[in-house]
Amino acid sequence: MITERLQALRKEMLAQNIDAYIIPSSDPHQSEYVADHWKVRAYFSGFTGSAGTLVITQDKAALWTDSRYFLQVEEECANSEVTLYKQTIPHAPEHIPWLCETLENNTVIGIDFRQFSKAQVDYLQEFATPKNIQLQHEATIVDTIWKDRPSMPSQPIEEHLVVFTGETTASKLSKVKNEIQRQKAGFYFFSSLDEIAWLFNIRSNDVDFTPLVTAYALVDIDKTILFCYKERFSEELLQQASELQIEIYAYDTVLEHLPALTANQKVITDDASLNYAIFNAIAERFIFQNSIAQQLKAIKNSVEIEGAKKCILKDGIALTKFFIWLEKEVEKRSISEYEIGEKLTHFRQQQAHYTGNSFAPIVGYKGNGAIIHYSATKEGAALVQNEGILLIDSGGQYKDGTTDITRTIWLGGTPSDTIKMAYTAVLKGYISLEQLQFPLGTTGVQIDAFARMHLWKHGMNYPHGTGHGIGSYGMVHEPAQGFATSTTTSRGSTVHLPNQLTTIEPGYYVTDEFGIRIENIVLSKVTQTTDFGTFLGFEPLTLCYVDTTLINIDSLTKEEVQWLNTYHAFVLQELTPHLTAEEHNWLADKCKAISLS
Amino acid sequence: MITERLQALRKEMLAQNIDAYIIPSSDPHQSEYVADHWKVRAYFSGFTGSAGTLVITQDKAALWTDSRYFLQVEEECANSEVTLYKQTIPHAPEHIPWLCETLENNTVIGIDFRQFSKAQVDYLQEFATPKNIQLQHEATIVDTIWKDRPSMPSQPIEEHLVVFTGETTASKLSKVKNEIQRQKAGFYFFSSLDEIAWLFNIRSNDVDFTPLVTAYALVDIDKTILFCYKERFSEELLQQASELQIEIYAYDTVLEHLPALTANQKVITDDASLNYAIFNAIAERFIFQNSIAQQLKAIKNSVEIEGAKKCILKDGIALTKFFIWLEKEVEKRSISEYEIGEKLTHFRQQQAHYTGNSFAPIVGYKGNGAIIHYSATKEGAALVQNEGILLIDSGGQYKDGTTDITRTIWLGGTPSDTIKMAYTAVLKGYISLEQLQFPLGTTGVQIDAFARMHLWKHGMNYPHGTGHGIGSYGMVHEPAQGFATSTTTSRGSTVHLPNQLTTIEPGYYVTDEFGIRIENIVLSKVTQTTDFGTFLGFEPLTLCYVDTTLINIDSLTKEEVQWLNTYHAFVLQELTPHLTAEEHNWLADKCKAISLS
Repeated sequence: MITERLQALRKEMLAQNIDAYIIPSSDPHQSEYVADHWKVRAYFSGFTGSAGTLVITQDKAALWTDSRYFLQVEEECANSEVTLYKQTIPHAPEHIPWLCETLENNTVIGIDFRQFSKAQVDYLQEFATPKNIQLQHEATIVDTIWKDRPSMPSQPIEEHLVVFTGETTASKLSKVKNEIQRQKAGFYFFSSLDEIAWLFNIRSNDVDFTPLVTAYALVDIDKTILFCYKERFSEELLQQASELQIEIYAYDTVLEHLPALTANQKVITDDASLNYAIFNAIAERFIFQNSIAQQLKAIKNSVEIEGAKKCILKDGIALTKFFIWLEKEVEKRSISEYEIGEKLTHFRQQQAHYTGNSFAPIVGYKGNGAIIHYSATKEGAALVQNEGILLIDSGGQYKDGTTDITRTIWLGGTPSDTIKMAYTAVLKGYISLEQLQFPLGTTGVQIDAFARMHLWKHGMNYPHGTGHGIGSYGMVHEPAQGFATSTTTSRGSTVHLPNQLTTIEPGYYVTDEFGIRIENIVLSKVTQTTDFGTFLGFEPLTLCYVDTTLINIDSLTKEEVQWLNTYHAFVLQELTPHLTAEEHNWLADKCKAISLS
Repeated sequence: MITERLQALRKEMLAQNIDAYIIPSSDPHQSEYVADHWKVRAYFSGFTGSAGTLVITQDKAALWTDSRYFLQVEEECANSEVTLYKQTIPHAPEHIPWLCETLENNTVIGIDFRQFSKAQVDYLQEFATPKNIQLQHEATIVDTIWKDRPSMPSQPIEEHLVVFTGETTASKLSKVKNEIQRQKAGFYFFSSLDEIAWLFNIRSNDVDFTPLVTAYALVDIDKTILFCYKERFSEELLQQASELQIEIYAYDTVLEHLPALTANQKVITDDASLNYAIFNAIAERFIFQNSIAQQLKAIKNSVEIEGAKKCILKDGIALTKFFIWLEKEVEKRSISEYEIGEKLTHFRQQQAHYTGNSFAPIVGYKGNGAIIHYSATKEGAALVQNEGILLIDSGGQYKDGTTDITRTIWLGGTPSDTIKMAYTAVLKGYISLEQLQFPLGTTGVQIDAFARMHLWKHGMNYPHGTGHGIGSYGMVHEPAQGFATSTTTSRGSTVHLPNQLTTIEPGYYVTDEFGIRIENIVLSKVTQTTDFGTFLGFEPLTLCYVDTTLINIDSLTKEEVQWLNTYHAFVLQELTPHLTAEEHNWLADKCKAISLS
């Protein structure tokens, strides 16, 4: 199937004199999860992971992705000519120097400009220009081959009520308008679906796992234009929009209208989410900055923080019931990883305001836990038995917030010394970073290593960042703050600020053997102000027990033991009012205090 | 005096229609320490620190420098109109946005292109161009006013023997030539005095504290041209140069010869040290890269590492004798900080191959210890008495290496809880970073915070990086590796590699009260290789006791106590063979093991 598709693409490339065609994972909004219409890379490669780029020439089909996906690619592309090329740095465009090295002088690369940011095209041209390699915008070649390509999203749009958002669209728009005036510009243009959903307090289900609406937005001082199909709005929503001087233009008319609408004026935008087709339309009139919406959105207001606490409580209830079910059920029978994921979803579905999962649950038994973004299929899932180790990373979308939690549990039998040592080092890393106090101005790259130091001590490590921002009924991976080993990602280069929600999730993975990860959502807050400035720290919000069977208790410090006991007392106290007596007893046992011998 | 100089400069600026004149601290080689000829900023501002930029307009004389120098500027510029502007980030060109904001449209900024790198001019133009502010190259304006300006250095040049360097010039040049061929270029051009001294194994004393030779070098496959005054070479050196196909051209003919010498060919260089006047000469033919010499030089060979150990041993002997002298002498009388610095120099002078200090000794008593780059003058020095706290940061140049060490000692009386708490936190920070094991690929910014975490815990911090590379009879601050809080400096952005020499030097400062800093030189080396790659760690080389009077022993961990006892045993063992029995007894007491109560 993949072979046929690649053959068809190559035939078309030959016809159009294209020597290489690059297919990224993105949509025209540089989204992480994309609508089915934009799953072009998956269509041509078979690889379904969320990050990766396919480069096709007449004799190669090179799939570039990072270490999180190496095992997944090996499985999904096993029977095709698609070859894995390993990125050293996640999301880095390492395929570009390689491709331009591979291609002859005076050749042609085809790309759909809509799927590439300006920075990506600039970087590509840096390597292409010296060899006189031309870039050719190709927006139709895929449609020619992909006959049953899914159409653009058309579901109804819902208002995300102010009881959840804590701030009206009018208030958010006024902040954007202040920024336009402060910069003496004419307009602010938004491409990021996540920022548009936040700004207009609208949600829908255009993409998997994230309640976003496919749109562009152009804000000026007097009015606002939302490029989005009008049929998707109710009469009531249209009325509200009208009151806010918001006009609705059809989504696909943005390129046509933008030049005239903004004539002669400066337009502020974030080039990280701007696609190259739109950049081209009014190129030199754009002013680039880190999106004001992204900056505002990253600081949660009190309603959003309360919402996060509410949905995390619901998540905690669901997870407790789920782990009780799992513990009992696996004593009776083997259960597939897929069924476990479905059951976890079932428990979340019982909770108020749940609308779906925030990503595909990762249920990785033994060696599958080492596949960092593993997603068991109904057919291919492993059978989980009453022994060994199980990693579960999952999250929900609730109208009051978005969750993301990982726990690794021991099902039975005797854990190896390696597993216990690694689990303990991962837990110690989580505690070290979560308990750190640091000055305002500190970026993610400066403190990421606190989560790794205990692993490093033993010559161990994990091949992913240590955490990411999380949205409010928005993206599970929300820019910009987080923890990473380099400043090539915003998670490394961004300063942590009070009232942000971020995950801390160190791990440890041994291919084919096991995976360990422990992940909580933490709230950043001011801890003290001294002569040396303001200091911040993290408060854990996630409510779920941490399996103590895998801990080498005597290699914890007094402070670490105290942290664990305090955390478990907090989990038990918060969840108990929502549990039956039997459930409470079960949880109380999981949460019982440990002590050094 | 400063007023007169500024008046004369402003008169000249008016005559030449220059609205603002920028005077940096650099020479045409972007050196840290510069020859007297280039001390232009000090001449016009009175500020003698090593980093800072003076911006002069008709109504302002703005001195931009970083927090290390705030107190020094306040003192040195107290009686002039020179105003301190505080840089938030050391060395960041924060004066440029400020200046271009201050100036009207269509004005003129004068600068001596030789004192600015290409990156600095580019950055300046970024802000100047939108307001149509012109840059005017002014290489003579200073000479007009500074009648007794010191001439260019002319002392004899010495060969730095291979028994010290461990590698011949021929071998080093062949590596540069390989790089030229690898890059298919014609030439490699060097501007950095430190790289030139390393590459040609030559030394002199052109600048303060660093045994450098003022020169440029142009390497091609067949021959090498050294731009340097020929009179400075002995017959023997000229003969050696000739055997290596090295030709000597006069230093000040570089701009005249470079275009013709390199005609039509690509020239690799490092734009960090290249000045804009030279860049302009053959602009588009330069290829920029991090200097190969800098990269090679940062990895010490076994002779250099042995040399470092030898001169550190000599330093340790000198310091021990010095601290014994100080302890006895201060019981008898008050001693000025200046005399203490002189005496320390005296003890270093007794050691073989000592040629001078690697920077002006910092002897800071009580509040003066809080001035991070304090340098007591003969007249203004404080009198040190037999009580309170004293910070001493000093280093020597020996033919076998360069040293840099800081110790903070308690002279007598009862230390406050704050001082003990801070001293203990600084020591714990030193130990945490020095004892860290980390994967190959780790940059300075990722691990700098380990030296700060114990201070951060108490809402404390220090306003400088945590360490820097150090040369081999070269620069005391050698690029590129180190530890810093951001990647705007190479010390933050550079990966640590095996066989590098780096300082670790956390501190704590309370203005007008006291300063604490503990600094050792450490050698980076491979500790283990696992499935997760190669891991590195640091070995402390510096040999000097750490004052234990100021430690809150019971707030150390078992591991920290063990580290201190092991370190002290090592110091005592290495130094003892070189001490008298009396000196040994004194040191044995300072080094005696501590234990938790």
